[in-house]
Amino acid sequence: MCELLAMSANVPTDICFSFTGLLRRGGATGPHKDGWGLVFYETGGVREFKDHLPSSESPIAKFLQEYSIKSHIVISHIRQANVGKVSLANTHPFQRELWGKQWTFAHNGQVNDFKQFPLSRFQPVGSTDSEHLFCWLMGQLDKQFSSAPPMEQWQKLIHECCLQIHKAGIANILLSDGDALFAFCSSKLSWITRKAPFGTARLADTDVTIDFSRVTSVDDVVSVIATEPLTIDETWHAIPPGEYCVFVDGKFMDKPAQS
Amino acid sequence: MCELLAMSANVPTDICFSFTGLLRRGGATGPHKDGWGLVFYETGGVREFKDHLPSSESPIAKFLQEYSIKSHIVISHIRQANVGKVSLANTHPFQRELWGKQWTFAHNGQVNDFKQFPLSRFQPVGSTDSEHLFCWLMGQLDKQFSSAPPMEQWQKLIHECCLQIHKAGIANILLSDGDALFAFCSSKLSWITRKAPFGTARLADTDVTIDFSRVTSVDDVVSVIATEPLTIDETWHAIPPGEYCVFVDGKFMDKPAQS
Repeated sequence: MCELLAMSANVPTDICFSFTGLLRRGGATGPHKDGWGLVFYETGGVREFKDHLPSSESPIAKFLQEYSIKSHIVISHIRQANVGKVSLANTHPFQRELWGKQWTFAHNGQVNDFKQFPLSRFQPVGSTDSEHLFCWLMGQLDKQFSSAPPMEQWQKLIHECCLQIHKAGIANILLSDGDALFAFCSSKLSWITRKAPFGTARLADTDVTIDFSRVTSVDDVVSVIATEPLTIDETWHAIPPGEYCVFVDGKFMDKPAQS
Repeated sequence: MCELLAMSANVPTDICFSFTGLLRRGGATGPHKDGWGLVFYETGGVREFKDHLPSSESPIAKFLQEYSIKSHIVISHIRQANVGKVSLANTHPFQRELWGKQWTFAHNGQVNDFKQFPLSRFQPVGSTDSEHLFCWLMGQLDKQFSSAPPMEQWQKLIHECCLQIHKAGIANILLSDGDALFAFCSSKLSWITRKAPFGTARLADTDVTIDFSRVTSVDDVVSVIATEPLTIDETWHAIPPGEYCVFVDGKFMDKPAQS
């Protein structure tokens, strides 16, 4: 299994604190030593960093812990390989362009019979179940909509598709088009929203404490989604298996009634 | 205008030396201060680094000059903006997946009437002429071939398309699918192949000399392609305008006769 981390914020925010906790799980406090990746949606574009080295030993990961990149959506993943060898091509997150938007995907879990999900115009470059599932999801969106629909419409379709994957295996999924952050829980995924009044928090995986009131302003709203809660002194919400959450500009969005 | 740099090698090779020369042109010895990007095709996958800061000031560029990433194909670009504002989305190289391969593109020049080249399934995320042209090229490949053809076939089609773009403006182009490196010259592009016996070379833009015989083995073959020769004591070959070169595993490839 792998570890997922994502952030949605209403102002450009750095994720150094959460990333520091996550990285420790990549070969130090956790077994997820088979590479890691981070995608930042920043003002004006998208940037990706990946390494096939364990995140606890990666010079690029170390650089990113110290170099503050401020973004409004982040998707990150550290990998413990199951399907597909350790390589850059098999390192999440994966990206594809659809409707002139850059989509980003990361997956925690395992779907053995992933080839039951047929591919169309999007093809995997690597050999993971995860990238195959992402290509299938992108193909489903492409078939259903010729251009970008209102976000509720693509989220409804993606949720229906995620439920099909959920029946075939375990698939905790993070997906973003740069506007919304979509999180589907198949087995384990938690989230927290931080807003004023901000307090302190202590990482579960390393002895680091942050006082958010010193690094935020009163209007900031930041949500963090992770496989396991990253801090030990805050209340995280578990997403029930089979359900999804959407975050826009840091805020948890109420979803339309599901049919 | 921008500066292009690419490398093709038969063994995983680092580009720190050439990149050091190029980076000086990004705001120090040259006016190309509007961002930079580097794509590495490594054993097992592709990795991209981008920044909208001038390359001569970018902490990520500095990190990459010191951190040796060994790859068999590299495409790099430093930007002086003409069409499209300074932003990550407008920073080259651009990437798209086609036929399960990751394609990378960078452009030097300017094509004002770029919208005459119609788009199909690939759409630009940013607002440059360059990304539009890349999307058009990828669309042409997709229309002509349903799966990856022998490389001579896609190169012939891309050359025909590049000649159409060349009629509409200036377009020095670097393109790779991870196997071959394709370089089209519209106005200015030079290349050099280094192989045994290796000598020394001195960068044109900064006082750095390298003795390649100390960092290579006798079977290494490495070609470098750049807008302007990067060294002052080696013989570079200029590609004639309207023509293209292909490099595979570091070697300059003889092309089939053109109709």
